[in-house]
Amino acid sequence: MNIDNVNAELLLSMKEDVRQAYEELHSKGLNLDLTRGKPSAEQLDFSVDLLSLPGENFTSPSGVDVRNYGGGVGLTEVRQLWADVLGLPVDNVIAGDASSLNIMFDLISWAYTFGTNDSERPWSAEEKLKWICPVPGYDRHHSITELFGFEMLTVDMTDEGPDMDQVRELAKDPAVKGMWAVPMFANPTGVTYSQQTAEALAAMETGAPDFRIVWDNAYVVHTLTGEFPEIINILDVAEKAGNPNRFWAMSSTSKITFAGAGLAFFASSTENLEWYKKIANVRGIGPNKVNQLAHLQYLKDAEGVRDLMRKHAGSLGPKFTRVVEILERRLGEANVAEWTVPEGGYFISVNLLDGTASRVVELAKKAGVALTAAGSTYPLKQDPNDRNLRLAPSMPTIEQLEIAMEGFATCVLYAAIEMVEHAAGQR
Amino acid sequence: MNIDNVNAELLLSMKEDVRQAYEELHSKGLNLDLTRGKPSAEQLDFSVDLLSLPGENFTSPSGVDVRNYGGGVGLTEVRQLWADVLGLPVDNVIAGDASSLNIMFDLISWAYTFGTNDSERPWSAEEKLKWICPVPGYDRHHSITELFGFEMLTVDMTDEGPDMDQVRELAKDPAVKGMWAVPMFANPTGVTYSQQTAEALAAMETGAPDFRIVWDNAYVVHTLTGEFPEIINILDVAEKAGNPNRFWAMSSTSKITFAGAGLAFFASSTENLEWYKKIANVRGIGPNKVNQLAHLQYLKDAEGVRDLMRKHAGSLGPKFTRVVEILERRLGEANVAEWTVPEGGYFISVNLLDGTASRVVELAKKAGVALTAAGSTYPLKQDPNDRNLRLAPSMPTIEQLEIAMEGFATCVLYAAIEMVEHAAGQR
Repeated sequence: MNIDNVNAELLLSMKEDVRQAYEELHSKGLNLDLTRGKPSAEQLDFSVDLLSLPGENFTSPSGVDVRNYGGGVGLTEVRQLWADVLGLPVDNVIAGDASSLNIMFDLISWAYTFGTNDSERPWSAEEKLKWICPVPGYDRHHSITELFGFEMLTVDMTDEGPDMDQVRELAKDPAVKGMWAVPMFANPTGVTYSQQTAEALAAMETGAPDFRIVWDNAYVVHTLTGEFPEIINILDVAEKAGNPNRFWAMSSTSKITFAGAGLAFFASSTENLEWYKKIANVRGIGPNKVNQLAHLQYLKDAEGVRDLMRKHAGSLGPKFTRVVEILERRLGEANVAEWTVPEGGYFISVNLLDGTASRVVELAKKAGVALTAAGSTYPLKQDPNDRNLRLAPSMPTIEQLEIAMEGFATCVLYAAIEMVEHAAGQR
Repeated sequence: MNIDNVNAELLLSMKEDVRQAYEELHSKGLNLDLTRGKPSAEQLDFSVDLLSLPGENFTSPSGVDVRNYGGGVGLTEVRQLWADVLGLPVDNVIAGDASSLNIMFDLISWAYTFGTNDSERPWSAEEKLKWICPVPGYDRHHSITELFGFEMLTVDMTDEGPDMDQVRELAKDPAVKGMWAVPMFANPTGVTYSQQTAEALAAMETGAPDFRIVWDNAYVVHTLTGEFPEIINILDVAEKAGNPNRFWAMSSTSKITFAGAGLAFFASSTENLEWYKKIANVRGIGPNKVNQLAHLQYLKDAEGVRDLMRKHAGSLGPKFTRVVEILERRLGEANVAEWTVPEGGYFISVNLLDGTASRVVELAKKAGVALTAAGSTYPLKQDPNDRNLRLAPSMPTIEQLEIAMEGFATCVLYAAIEMVEHAAGQR
């Protein structure tokens, strides 16, 4: 948001009201949190029955005693369940422990140390490593590529996914080894990649023969409306484009059953999975099959997953609606912010008047409302325009959320007025 | 075992009986397995109540909702429980997911890529990497150091742990970065390291400033007799020796509750843990706390762990006794093998007449008795004397075990007779 588009006159006329509102906010001694995309207790309660499973039924349908060692790729039946959710063949889906982030880290780490199945040498042996990061994006993705020393190249997000002209241009560089992607209800923009974007990503020329897109489908069934968009069969798209090994696809039940105690899944080409398994089988004996069987018993099938997600939508939808209402009512006319209106996922992305995001976080913090740090959605946590903030409405109750969002709006206006006054003073 | 010590006369006199016994064995069409150190169904049944936990009691004693994100080092109470088992301060113990092997792999991997907290550079930047492996040892340890390209240097095991003269000499080389160790009821020898060995390992001079001993206490409470040997406080020993960061200590409940679905623990100095956490916090958000709380509720406290281990001893002890009886009765007089008589752990280590181990495995396989491949207990799976075999008596019933062990003894005699005849023919 550029200062020239702001309704400065209106803003300045609100100055006293906003100052007073901020002081009142301050005096309330709040302790509210909009930082983390954590499910609420209400959502976690949906799956309380899972906490008593598998009980005495510890044998999988195909006869595996899940209490003992064995089975590096996970229980066949839970792999099948998830393959059905994703519309993929079961052979291309591995069921792991709780965290898809763990798998992503390992993939980058092992490509770095050993090279992928398509690498001429370990990534660590390259002179320079670069990685494409659509922004705003997910901070924990960026932390991984930061740790391994990648130069992170940002590309803009459009309504259909990352700007493909920018991506195509960057991917020509052989030092660019891959890209982060959250293809459905993206963190934090809520954007779902179009079929066209997926096909372009699969087909594009890359300078590196071992270019990989981490296709982190963390929100693959995470509707806020009860409607489920079609899931792109990314392995099929990649195969048809002649680049079958391009995608490492992730998903998990972290925001379906329990955050941190669900199941994570890794889907990829046969060759990619063979490469992964060869190393994973040295790292350990296999995932926790007790939890996998418990999930199978609880979720039952793909429709069981969607049923549960409709319950989550019933809890989350009204919260998102309320956030958007408050943003519109409080900030719309002054034109000091723009925000996404997502149909799925966990976040609302807000672009504020350039240069005010960190000030808003500071003001909110003083008033007892915790916001994700400004810059968090950018590599190295540096937002070049200091404008993007990620709001996570899931965790608070709707009453807490309203108080926090009214406070947030007050802080946004407060910071915008400061900025407008400052700019006026400089003219 | 050297051929000169064999009772050749006796052996040759048994030839026809042994040949007939082997033919009978062959004709039985057996399908028995002595390969893997897996708990039996009877043992797994001890913890069946754990499979219904935590149920609706999903809040930890200190008020953490274990269903949600957070807590990278694990639940405080379960760390305390395990710290009590080990006799360590809770601050030096991290509770993870099911597999301590996973943690060991990550430690080596991260030291390789980033260097440890005491490293001058990443291990990958060294010209040559070497690692000390007491033999016979654990194949999965060796696989990790093999994958990362370490030259593995073997040292002999004594009744008090590895031969310290050999270890001290090897450790002077700056390329030697560390050592595998299973300090209690070792895999496969059953040896428990003495306090003196532990102190010597802690105090010895090492060429590498970042030398690490992976202190894999996989069998820390795994008594076969009901007696629990004192657990060496290795962090304290290291601190007193002036090398506080020398040990990375592991343990797990894999053979206490469920194999592959228990809890793993990592204990080390504060500095080492800080280093580990810095990377682990990029790798993910934290372990499965639902399973941690379930274990806390089920095990209750350190005495609860020991109670459970006494039940395991009740199941395993008679199996081990039976194995030793059969070995003694069938092989003692001919002097074609020597074996350990362990007081804990999961294995019996057998040294056969040199050059016969792989032949015994081959003969047993033909007769339907699966043995761990010869050489498995050595780095690169190469036993220079082709003599060591690891027997795992836990998984079969005692009746199956007797049949398998009688068959094993027949195969050992068969191979020894072949060898004696061959040697006689060459003279």
